[in-house]
Order: sequence, then structure tokens, then C-alpha cells
Amino acid sequence: MSDVAPPKRRRSGGRAANTAKRLTSDINQMPWRLPINTDRPTEPLDGDGVQAIHDGAMRILEEIGIEFLNEEAVELFKQAGCTVDGTNVKMGRDWVMEMIAKAPEQFDITPRNPDKKITLGGGHILFGNVSSPPNYFDLEIGKKVSGNRKQCADLLRLTQHFNCIHFAGGYPVEPVDVHASVRHLDVVFDKMTLTDKVGHAYSLGKERVEDVMEMVRISGGWTDEEFVSKPRMYTNINSTSPLKHDVPMIDGCLRCVRRGQAVVVTPFTLAGAMAPVTMSGAVSLSIAEALSAIALFQYVRPGAPCVIGTFTSNVDMKSGAPAFGTPEYMRATQMTGQMARFYGLPMRSSGVCAANVPDGQAMWETSNSLWAAVQSGTNMVYHAAGWLEGGLIASPEKFVMDCEVIQMIQRYMEPQITATTPADIAFDAIKEVGSAGHFFGIQHTQDRYEKAFYEPFVSDWRNFEAWEIAGGEWTAQRAHRIFKDIIANFQEPPMDAAIRSELEDFVARRKSEGGAPTDF
Amino acid sequence: MSDVAPPKRRRSGGRAANTAKRLTSDINQMPWRLPINTDRPTEPLDGDGVQAIHDGAMRILEEIGIEFLNEEAVELFKQAGCTVDGTNVKMGRDWVMEMIAKAPEQFDITPRNPDKKITLGGGHILFGNVSSPPNYFDLEIGKKVSGNRKQCADLLRLTQHFNCIHFAGGYPVEPVDVHASVRHLDVVFDKMTLTDKVGHAYSLGKERVEDVMEMVRISGGWTDEEFVSKPRMYTNINSTSPLKHDVPMIDGCLRCVRRGQAVVVTPFTLAGAMAPVTMSGAVSLSIAEALSAIALFQYVRPGAPCVIGTFTSNVDMKSGAPAFGTPEYMRATQMTGQMARFYGLPMRSSGVCAANVPDGQAMWETSNSLWAAVQSGTNMVYHAAGWLEGGLIASPEKFVMDCEVIQMIQRYMEPQITATTPADIAFDAIKEVGSAGHFFGIQHTQDRYEKAFYEPFVSDWRNFEAWEIAGGEWTAQRAHRIFKDIIANFQEPPMDAAIRSELEDFVARRKSEGGAPTDF
Repeated sequence: MSDVAPPKRRRSGGRAANTAKRLTSDINQMPWRLPINTDRPTEPLDGDGVQAIHDGAMRILEEIGIEFLNEEAVELFKQAGCTVDGTNVKMGRDWVMEMIAKAPEQFDITPRNPDKKITLGGGHILFGNVSSPPNYFDLEIGKKVSGNRKQCADLLRLTQHFNCIHFAGGYPVEPVDVHASVRHLDVVFDKMTLTDKVGHAYSLGKERVEDVMEMVRISGGWTDEEFVSKPRMYTNINSTSPLKHDVPMIDGCLRCVRRGQAVVVTPFTLAGAMAPVTMSGAVSLSIAEALSAIALFQYVRPGAPCVIGTFTSNVDMKSGAPAFGTPEYMRATQMTGQMARFYGLPMRSSGVCAANVPDGQAMWETSNSLWAAVQSGTNMVYHAAGWLEGGLIASPEKFVMDCEVIQMIQRYMEPQITATTPADIAFDAIKEVGSAGHFFGIQHTQDRYEKAFYEPFVSDWRNFEAWEIAGGEWTAQRAHRIFKDIIANFQEPPMDAAIRSELEDFVARRKSEGGAPTDF
Repeated sequence: MSDVAPPKRRRSGGRAANTAKRLTSDINQMPWRLPINTDRPTEPLDGDGVQAIHDGAMRILEEIGIEFLNEEAVELFKQAGCTVDGTNVKMGRDWVMEMIAKAPEQFDITPRNPDKKITLGGGHILFGNVSSPPNYFDLEIGKKVSGNRKQCADLLRLTQHFNCIHFAGGYPVEPVDVHASVRHLDVVFDKMTLTDKVGHAYSLGKERVEDVMEMVRISGGWTDEEFVSKPRMYTNINSTSPLKHDVPMIDGCLRCVRRGQAVVVTPFTLAGAMAPVTMSGAVSLSIAEALSAIALFQYVRPGAPCVIGTFTSNVDMKSGAPAFGTPEYMRATQMTGQMARFYGLPMRSSGVCAANVPDGQAMWETSNSLWAAVQSGTNMVYHAAGWLEGGLIASPEKFVMDCEVIQMIQRYMEPQITATTPADIAFDAIKEVGSAGHFFGIQHTQDRYEKAFYEPFVSDWRNFEAWEIAGGEWTAQRAHRIFKDIIANFQEPPMDAAIRSELEDFVARRKSEGGAPTDF
């Protein structure tokens, strides 16, 4: 390989700078919308297959049972008539199905800006930012580093900037420079002020969940009654696969559910490691773990807004490393989609990859996982922008690149692309142009060209020579520039000064009280 | 951006070299197979939509007509009772549908190695190499250059090496260093000796088509009767959209059809340029152009093996540049898939991108187009490996990267991933492991782990630190190393010395005769 290692370094100023301005202007971004997935889901299972996974999950719940380490949960299962032996809870399928039937197939979450209300279920497919990586990578730093508050805030700015990102998940990177006892206060303050989209609380101890619910309440200017009257936020929990739910996650969900907030239950079932090496075995385990918790929440509050999550992938059997966006991941996601529809629950999956940097592998793995979300009928796509290294790294370049793919998926959902009215079939235009002309200048084109096609903001569609003259930037370099430009021009969403002040006071008071315990 | 521009340069030797050896060993490549696409196609059109496009195409054929510049074709249409006015041919839908009904829904092509027989149609999805770029780019050269014979031969070696590549399309790069009059002789000699897969002839004048058919016949050691007894090769033609078929392309198809060889008819209908700005208009035009030629071939030889191709995409309305792998491209491909099934014809689409280098954009655009091939029920995926810059550049790194994606699609098609037998549901394994163990060591895993999951050869699933220690190579750099390793270790497929000698003699004779005219 020559010394001209790709990608070439960016030329500063000149044409490249002009291009940067054009590339990040607002006209290139699609408007906020809640896309509807009209594709018939891809269904690898036939009816017998669905029944086999259902029966497998039910037998796990009936004959093996799930460990609930949370004492309150165990008491509730006892009250409900389940078979409890220490922390082991066995539950009959009739009871489980009775509880699951109480869950809504679709519900809304309304954040402080009501225009950013989201609907989970009902054919919608919505996207959220990467959540929870402990590390950060960008092209300027050029290496993997521990996350900090500034990086976290920048990723929240990207979350707010992109209309194709519908909800703010967990911390887009862990700000390790903020002490764990008060981290939730600082990050949620940043999230509440830098975004006006639906937010999230980690279920990591009662103080954190209660603090976040209070901060979301303050951000909306709501009374307590107004806050609990409808979902304003959500929490997402993972089971400790195999077959276990820990103390704080169930606690956090119970707190949210009792105050009318939404919960997402996402087992992390890596086939070959904490789940069977067979994908339908891993899915059966995932379904059992998720339903056991959702059944509990429905028992506590019938009709509680719940989402069934999937994080079933496989490991590399040589190294034990998790793999993402694999064929097995795609099929597991599609199978879980069939099961979610069988149970009548909204579904969450993810936009994921194993790649360490925002390169070709990152994009084929992420594309595979995002298309699996589409194919599975997923309603809520977690980690859809910014994820690298199996979730251990957050990357702003990857965030920008993923948003291009997500925008294309949103555009793909627009029914006008496949409209077949006479004006779309365009017989008269074809007759007008005949065999010797072209369609650029005709009225049929002039009337439609502005909205006819997807307009990219990272993709460079120029020919090689024009691209080279403009700096010859590879995709990640263009994305870096766009990231910087978005941050430089970011405008905070409006917030009433009194509300901001109340949030500040709340954070100050809770910090003076010591924040939250760090014994999780 | 810092001076540490990604991707970092490769470290030579040491760990990286060892890894290279492992990465390209044969065990990481999937075996030759003809995958069956079991997914229900994605169908954006309802029955009325299919009828609207069909009616649009039929009205184009009946009321506007197609220009056939080939005089023989015009005479044949006259014989068949079509309405001919100069070069304009109008044909009634009854006649068109009667002709199209004669075409087989599925057929085989058998090359010199009968183990490499391919089946087009019948649920198969097969992949071919990039065809016809005039330029070449690799990381060692670091810039776009005109193609030459060595590069072309290397790309043919990749075509042969990868089991996931089922057929050899056109020249994987144009060897501009070989005079056009004899280029077909040299490249087809290289193709016949470096590969044993199904090959292709350009329809660029009778001499070229006849020469290639003769060379394919020689390569198989077949008599003329044996050659014509079944499809041994194919040609692919493009119409000159809008509404025109030129002289040599129809001539080449007629020559192939009369000798029992297969033809693929692929209009190149860029919406907004040579086709209507509406996707269903562009598809209607494409269908009309393709069917007009296929109807002719069925009239000439009922049952002739024909494939309907699609190359409908859109242009960037700002620059006029073609775009690929867009949402509009995906929907057009799916719509064409519905029409191909409506007409009972095998279908061709492509693996395409507008990106100039093998980076993130290249892979999301290519992934979009390859998944559209899957979703549309495509049987023959042209340009599936190695394409850049809208087909103007061939890249060996991109070839290697695409083969990873193609292998994953092939693995995705394997029904065992979604099997739900009791052993797959794995209830006993889940019970055995319980809530405190893991699945790595149990018998259920041991019995299955070797074939449980897709095994990559370009993707790096190690964590960031291990990846960095091994050289920190971005995907294109790893692909470059694999490309070099494949070429260095390439073994030609066996060929009888007498056959090779006969091919050499044929090439020498035809060169001494001056090759083919270059007035095309």
C-alpha cells in the first residue's frame, strides 16, 4: 500500500468550506414526521413456528421459572397466585396471556414539546440515538477515549438536530468525568434543555428514577397530576440473561408504571453465550424473560404502556465477542417481530454493529440491523444513530452517517414513491418526449422535480473528479465536518426561563443532598 | 481534524500478516451453492397498481411504439403483423402477451464446469461481478486510472475465487490498454482460463458475439450441436432509453437466441433524465422497452431463455448525476419485481452505488440495492461485487467487501437459522443452564457451534483494543490485503491442455484477421 492512505486529509477552506455550508443547510433535512411502515413484515416462521416459540417461552415460565431478585416483585407474583420458591417465580401461561392481553398495542408519549409526541405501535417505526457507550471516538481525537459531559452534550445536540431521531434514549455516551452519584442530574439537565424530545430514565436505583421523573415533570411545567395523566417518558431495562431480573431494573419499572410512564423490556440474549446457540432457542428465552416482567407490570397497572424489546444476536464462536447485524441477528429480529404481533405488543429493536470505526463494515452491519427493524415491523429502533464497537463507543460521525440511512428509510416509507395514478404512469410525458428527447426540461418534470427524490446530506453523488477537487473526503470525514457544523450552529429549543431555573434549582438541591447512591 | 487521519496506515508484517493468512483461508468462505430466496417479496403495488403499470407499458407499445434501428428486427416485426413505420414499431398487447407467455419462467445455464451450472428463476438469487467500468481504483494506486488487462484479470480471479459469485458478467474493468478490435479476444481468453463460471458476451457487433460464442464452445470441448443444445452463456443488452433499441445489441441477442443462448434485456431508465421523474412512469417505460425486445426474441425462437432486467434509478435533480441505492431505486426494483412475476419472467437487478471510494456511503448504497434485490425477488444480481462511482470505477477492495455482504445474504437464506424443532427451541438446554450458568460449554452448544453462525472474512469483530494492536485497519484496508492475498495464492481452474491450446490458436487466428470492427 502506498503512503497515500485513504481517506485523504481534508483541505481547509476554499471549495470544501463552501460545500460544508451547503451540505448542512436546513433544506437538506427531512421534516419531523412519524413514519408508517407499510411493508408487509418478513416472516420466516410459519404458524407452527410461532406456536413452537410461544410454547417454548411458556414452558420456560411454567417449568423453569424466572429469578426475580426484587423482593417487591416476588411479593406481587405471590399475590397474583404464581408459584414462588425463594427468588424463583413460575407462572402459568393462562395468567401470563391474561396479563399481556391488558397491554395496549399502541400508545403515545408526550414530551415537553407536544409537537414531538411519539406513537409507539400501530405501524410506526421511530428512531432513537445511541445509548450508554462508556467510550467516545471521533476523527479529531482519533482514538477511543472515556466519555465526558461535553461529548455527551454534543451527541444530545445531534439528537435534537436531526428530525429523523424521534426520541432521546439513555446517555448517548457515559460522561465518566461526572461522578456517578450526580451524573443523572447533569445529563438529564442537559437533555431537558438541549432537546425537547421524549426522554428516558435509567432504572438504576430509586433516587435516579424519581429524580428523572421529577425533572421531566418540571421540564413540561406540569403538575404531578398532569405528569402522571399520560406517558411523558420511558425507561428501558435489560434482564440478566439467562432467566433473571435484577433488583433496580424491576424497581425502576414499577416506579414508572405506577406513575403512568412507559417501560421497554429488552433481554440481552446473545446466542451461544447467555442464550442457546440456536436462534429460535435464544428468541424463546428472550420472549420468556420479557413477558415475565411485562406480565408483572400489567398485574400492577393493567394497561400500562409496555414495549417488548429484542437484543438477540450471536457471538463469534472463536472469540466469544458479540456480533451485530449478522444474518442470525436479522432473522432473530424478524422472528421476534412475529412474536410481538402474536402478543399484541409494540416492539423495540436496534441499529447496531460490531465495527470499531465509522467505515464500510460499520455501515453494512448497521444497514443490516436497520433493514431488519423495517422487515420485523419494529416500532422503536434504539441505538439507531451513533453506535460503534458493539455499543462500547459512541461516534458523532457514525451518528451523522446513520441519520442519512435513517432518512432514506423514512423516505422509502413515503407512499407517493410508488403511486400509480395516470400522472405517475406519465404516458403523456413519455409520448411528448418520444425516442429522441429527454425528460429534464418538460413540464411533467418541472412540476415535480423538487420533491421527486431523496436529497442526501452526507452522501456525495458527484463524479470522482468533482469529488476529488472538493477535497476527496471519505464518508466519515464529510460526516465529521457536518457534525462540527451542526454543533457550531446549534440552537437550543426554547424553554421558559422559570422552568429552566426550577430545573437548575432541583439539580443544585439534589447535588447538595449527595445525589444517588453508587452501590448499584 | 487532527493529522491522525483515518484509516491509519497498515503496519507491515507481524500480527497483521498472520491475521491476513487466517482471514483468507478457505475455511472462511462459504461453499458454492445456488441460494433460494424464501422471503415473501416486498410488494408496494396492489393489484390495481400492477395493472396500471402494465396498462402504461402496453399503451406505450401500442400507441407510441419503440424505435428499432436494427433492420432485421423491423422485418421480423412486420412478419409478425406489428405496425411498422420506418424504425417505429407498434405492437398490440395481445401479441406481446402471447409472445411473452412463451418465455420460460426458469432455465439453466451450463458453463464448461458443469458443477457451476446456474439456474435463473424459480426463487434463486444469484450474484455476478461488476461489469464494464472504464476505470479502476485501488488503495495501492490511490487514484482513479484507466483500466488495463492485468487489473481486469485480477478482478476475474476474484470472480472465480468467491463461491458467492455465481456468474462472470461483462469485463470487470475495460482493459483500455488492449485495442478495441481484439479486446474481446484477450479478455474472453482470460475469462475462459481464469474462471469456470457462466460467462457473457457483449452485443457489440456480430464478430464479437460470434467470437465469444465460439470461444465458449471451445472452452467446453463441445461440438456445435452440444453448444446450441442448451444455454452455455448469455448476453446482456441495454435499450437506448427512451424508447429505442440500437442495431448491434438487438443483433447480438438474435445471434444468441438463435443458437440457444440466454439474453438479458435491461433498459437504463434514470427517472428525471431518460425516463419520467415519477418512479412508476420510469418503470412503465422500462417494462415497455424490455418486453418489446423479449417479444421479438420469443417470436424468433419460442421458449428462448430471456431475463427482464431493471436499471431504474433516479438522478440528482441539482446536478443530473445518477444516484444509486436510493429509496426511489429500491421501490422501483420492488415494483419491477412485481411486474416480472406478473409476466412470468426471471428478473435481473444490480448491486450499485454512487460513491467514489469503498467507504461508508458505498456500503449503505450497495446494501440498499442488494436488499432491494432480495426484497424484489430478483434472480440475477448484476454488478454485485466491485462497483463504484455509478459504474465508472471497478475496485478490488469494494469487490471483497461486497462479497462479505453477499455471503451474509446467502447465509440469511439458509432455513436452518429459523428452524423451530424441539432441539432448536432448546428447552432442555435452557433448563440445564438455569439462571446462573452460561451456554458456552454445554453439549447443545458443542454439537452446533461450528456451523451455528455466519463466519466473516473481512469484518473485524474484535474489540477496539485488539483491532488497534493488529494495525487498526479500516475495512477497505483489510479488503485490500485480502485482495492481494487471493491474487497471490490464486489457482486457475483446471483446463485440458488441448482446449487451452485451441483457445490460444483461435485468438491468434482472429487477431491475425484483424479482430472486430471498431465502428460501434
